Amino acid sequence: MRSNEVIDEGTAYGRKPGVTNRDLTDTTPGTKMGDLLRRYWHPVGLAGDATERPKAIRVLTEDLILFRDKRGRPGLVYPRCAHRGTTLYYGKVEEKGIRCCYHGWLFDVEGHCLEQPCEPELGRHRDQVRQPWYPLEERYGLIFAYLGPAERKPKLPRWDVLEQMDADHTISASDHIQSGPKIVPCSWTHHYDNVPDHYHVPILHGSNSGVQFVEMMARMPQIDWEYTGIGVNTRARRKLDNGKTLLRITEGVLPNVRLIPDPGISRYGKSESVSWLLPVDDTHYMLYAALKMKPGWTRAFTRPAGKSWDEMTAAEHQQYPDDFEAQVGQGAITLHSEEHLATTDQGLAMLRRLLLKQAETVAEGGDPIGVSFGDDSVVATHAGNFLIDG
Amino acid sequence: MRSNEVIDEGTAYGRKPGVTNRDLTDTTPGTKMGDLLRRYWHPVGLAGDATERPKAIRVLTEDLILFRDKRGRPGLVYPRCAHRGTTLYYGKVEEKGIRCCYHGWLFDVEGHCLEQPCEPELGRHRDQVRQPWYPLEERYGLIFAYLGPAERKPKLPRWDVLEQMDADHTISASDHIQSGPKIVPCSWTHHYDNVPDHYHVPILHGSNSGVQFVEMMARMPQIDWEYTGIGVNTRARRKLDNGKTLLRITEGVLPNVRLIPDPGISRYGKSESVSWLLPVDDTHYMLYAALKMKPGWTRAFTRPAGKSWDEMTAAEHQQYPDDFEAQVGQGAITLHSEEHLATTDQGLAMLRRLLLKQAETVAEGGDPIGVSFGDDSVVATHAGNFLIDG
Amino acid sequence: MRSNEVIDEGTAYGRKPGVTNRDLTDTTPGTKMGDLLRRYWHPVGLAGDATERPKAIRVLTEDLILFRDKRGRPGLVYPRCAHRGTTLYYGKVEEKGIRCCYHGWLFDVEGHCLEQPCEPELGRHRDQVRQPWYPLEERYGLIFAYLGPAERKPKLPRWDVLEQMDADHTISASDHIQSGPKIVPCSWTHHYDNVPDHYHVPILHGSNSGVQFVEMMARMPQIDWEYTGIGVNTRARRKLDNGKTLLRITEGVLPNVRLIPDPGISRYGKSESVSWLLPVDDTHYMLYAALKMKPGWTRAFTRPAGKSWDEMTAAEHQQYPDDFEAQVGQGAITLHSEEHLATTDQGLAMLRRLLLKQAETVAEGGDPIGVSFGDDSVVATHAGNFLIDG
Repeated sequence: MRSNEVIDEGTAYGRKPGVTNRDLTDTTPGTKMGDLLRRYWHPVGLAGDATERPKAIRVLTEDLILFRDKRGRPGLVYPRCAHRGTTLYYGKVEEKGIRCCYHGWLFDVEGHCLEQPCEPELGRHRDQVRQPWYPLEERYGLIFAYLGPAERKPKLPRWDVLEQMDADHTISASDHIQSGPKIVPCSWTHHYDNVPDHYHVPILHGSNSGVQFVEMMARMPQIDWEYTGIGVNTRARRKLDNGKTLLRITEGVLPNVRLIPDPGISRYGKSESVSWLLPVDDTHYMLYAALKMKPGWTRAFTRPAGKSWDEMTAAEHQQYPDDFEAQVGQGAITLHSEEHLATTDQGLAMLRRLLLKQAETVAEGGDPIGVSFGDDSVVATHAGNFLIDG
Repeated sequence: MRSNEVIDEGTAYGRKPGVTNRDLTDTTPGTKMGDLLRRYWHPVGLAGDATERPKAIRVLTEDLILFRDKRGRPGLVYPRCAHRGTTLYYGKVEEKGIRCCYHGWLFDVEGHCLEQPCEPELGRHRDQVRQPWYPLEERYGLIFAYLGPAERKPKLPRWDVLEQMDADHTISASDHIQSGPKIVPCSWTHHYDNVPDHYHVPILHGSNSGVQFVEMMARMPQIDWEYTGIGVNTRARRKLDNGKTLLRITEGVLPNVRLIPDPGISRYGKSESVSWLLPVDDTHYMLYAALKMKPGWTRAFTRPAGKSWDEMTAAEHQQYPDDFEAQVGQGAITLHSEEHLATTDQGLAMLRRLLLKQAETVAEGGDPIGVSFGDDSVVATHAGNFLIDG
Repeated sequence: MRSNEVIDEGTAYGRKPGVTNRDLTDTTPGTKMGDLLRRYWHPVGLAGDATERPKAIRVLTEDLILFRDKRGRPGLVYPRCAHRGTTLYYGKVEEKGIRCCYHGWLFDVEGHCLEQPCEPELGRHRDQVRQPWYPLEERYGLIFAYLGPAERKPKLPRWDVLEQMDADHTISASDHIQSGPKIVPCSWTHHYDNVPDHYHVPILHGSNSGVQFVEMMARMPQIDWEYTGIGVNTRARRKLDNGKTLLRITEGVLPNVRLIPDPGISRYGKSESVSWLLPVDDTHYMLYAALKMKPGWTRAFTRPAGKSWDEMTAAEHQQYPDDFEAQVGQGAITLHSEEHLATTDQGLAMLRRLLLKQAETVAEGGDPIGVSFGDDSVVATHAGNFLIDG
């Protein structure tokens, strides 16, 4: 019936549907990773985002309202007014808190109901009402929130690189990735996978889109990874023409912190920034960063087509893909079952294992690594670009 | 392990997911409220909406086509042609009805199939085909439809305020709310909850967005509610500077009718309008109104930022919220489980109880209040702004 | 309680929800029709669509990347790179295939992994990785793909009308319907139903929207249908004023091929074109066509409002509906349970029965009609406009 040609059965026909390991990617309460994430502080805005004009934000799939009362205290509350559910986005901010536009219930930054103006005596039972709220702390120009169980609230970490300040150092905070929109439409894990995945640099940022950083970064490195107790370090060595070696250490700290030294390598030494991958929800994330600066320092931005990212056409994005394109190109949430991890993917495998192990610990009632309930300890970090012999 | 600080466990963490009482909000056939709503007539268009150009509308989650044949009879039919399902939106309106564009089947306003032009003898079995249709009646400049069981079709109600006409009275019909889009993106019940909720007036329309109506409406009223046999009356008393009292009665008539006297209080006396909250579907509604007017009468519209609603910016809507913002701000459908009703919410609790009770009656095979199968009785209403002593 | 009026219970109230026969319309693997469709070749692009710039396409609900390597071979691959899932839409096309932007894995047009540049020795185990791919063939200016089981891959058919070429004949390929967008937002079956449904011509293209083709096509025909072994022929006879008869044969060939002679009837004789309804997914399709042309031949396009389709307003589309409006007007997927097929719908009933029977044959392990595994046979077709006596 058919000729005797060799039949190549390795086509796309009959392949199995891909599957996501949701334990790694879920962000909602009651899920493995959602519960782990809720045991840490997360940046939810720049200091300037909390004002007398309420701002609607989304954090770990929770819609919330961020504001600052007229005494200067930032507040983060559930949007639906405890009375009849109108969003506090339309609330009026006052000295003592935020007042719902509909019937005027007034809540302070901790959700206490201070007034119910239509009720007798401003509400005889107002004490029994609590607007859902989350605690906030401000540091490094960022507002951090804790969305977890009250009795497990850790100290807000300090970071060595942001605490060791020269007289002329300043800290500059940022809320967006370099090339891409403010809210990136894919799982935060795509970016976190990218942190120990330093091998993509000579390809994506080197040969594929032209040299996006500096020439030495386009060279193929030798890489090893190590567990640090709070995450995974990636140590990449590149031989330079002068006989020296560039040692570049990038650091992932659980659950979603990254220390990526300047890829433009303007200076050698420790990384001057800490950044956080905020899971907006399962399929969106934002990048918050705190960056130590000195007068005269500049940061180079790649402009592959001589344009900024948002000025580029669809054809130019296709020609000059960057981290955004590579990560969003993995879909809204990647399909782990379809991956073929190789020797150069060891780092992300280690980081994922560590995340899953901590999620397991939390599910069993324990505390994950990297949380501190005692004194204000300072996190010691290792990331940086270092010039070494040999 | 942790310091001895007092732990405030009243945060947003661990709260239960909110739940809607769908018995109050569903609009589809076969649901409690959907079946109750189908026992009454509903406005589905202005008289001028039914023309020789078919118009696609949505009523109680049913997509329908409204037209007027060349004899002047309005028709309301299911969009999918009984033959092969092409929408009658593309139909040609003729003397006797509407003709499908695809194969020319002709239906009259009661869905009878008059011609199947490709079939022998224009269709020997065309009598066996009926295009799904609903009965219509026109009154007060509006077209009313009855979407319920034929054997329970009530009389289309007459309303006293629209029947008692001076020689120079005219009735003007309207199909949109004052501040907001024509189709409002939330459940109709958010607006119906608002009808007996007169306490929001001094807050939302008074202090919060500036005085949107007149100064006396911004004063805090004393309110009582009463069942009327067909709904709930809200009686609000405000002390005026001249020693008199403003008695303002607003009226909710089941299932979705409201009589709201002019909030600008240009005149004292009975309300001059009746309005209907048409559930477009579970998460959208429209407001139809019939308003008695006289030459020289005007109606004031609030322009909080000196602009009409659709000219306002997002920031201005946030600064000057109105009913639209407060109601749509409750979400597409509110979460009843999260409400904290207080003494000033009595009216809406009464109205909801009455609705649920009627829905129960219908589910048990009975007839709900307010439907009349006999003579053309006129509904007696009470709403108005009245100046009284003491 | 109610008057003695006759109650017409034939309204739209209480009608059953409509149901689709998904066996006819599904396009995904593992469904009746999805598996039948996968036993044939389908056009997936014009020859010029496969270039060094990867193109994202959708075929039978599968998202795929079409490209052409620098040796000129077209390739069709699953978008997600076998390594870490980044879409090959951002891949770089090279001499030997397509290279993922992220870590540089290189795949040829048959999905073989040729390089893993970050891995030692370009990947010692790269042979074990296969990027999912489908075979392609080019003919008539179109690129055809086979998405079915490898061991059942048939010959790509040749069509008599496109093989019998005069010296000055050329073939012109097209990828869009005449009046409508390139990707039509409804099931391909709506259009396939239309192929044997010649009775709609005098209505939709005749009286309803004005004479869209030529006057003789606006006359009501006499029609009979016949099974051809590979599909269904529709033979329509129209009496002309000169005593002759126009015999117009349109042909449907399984599973989704149509031969529609020029409706403008510029010439008599066999149809000069073959076209394919490509199911993009369950609710979208495209039309690919190959058309034999000679110098000087023109094709008339209807311009009902003196405008091309995409220049027409919504009101003009409503006034001058065409095939697009009639077919998309049946919804995203039609509801077969609501149809009332009549004597003039015999042809589509025959075509549907034939499709369902073949789907059954495939489900039972057999081969459907119209596939050939042996020599390059040429499909003999019958479609055309013929002038006959009597």
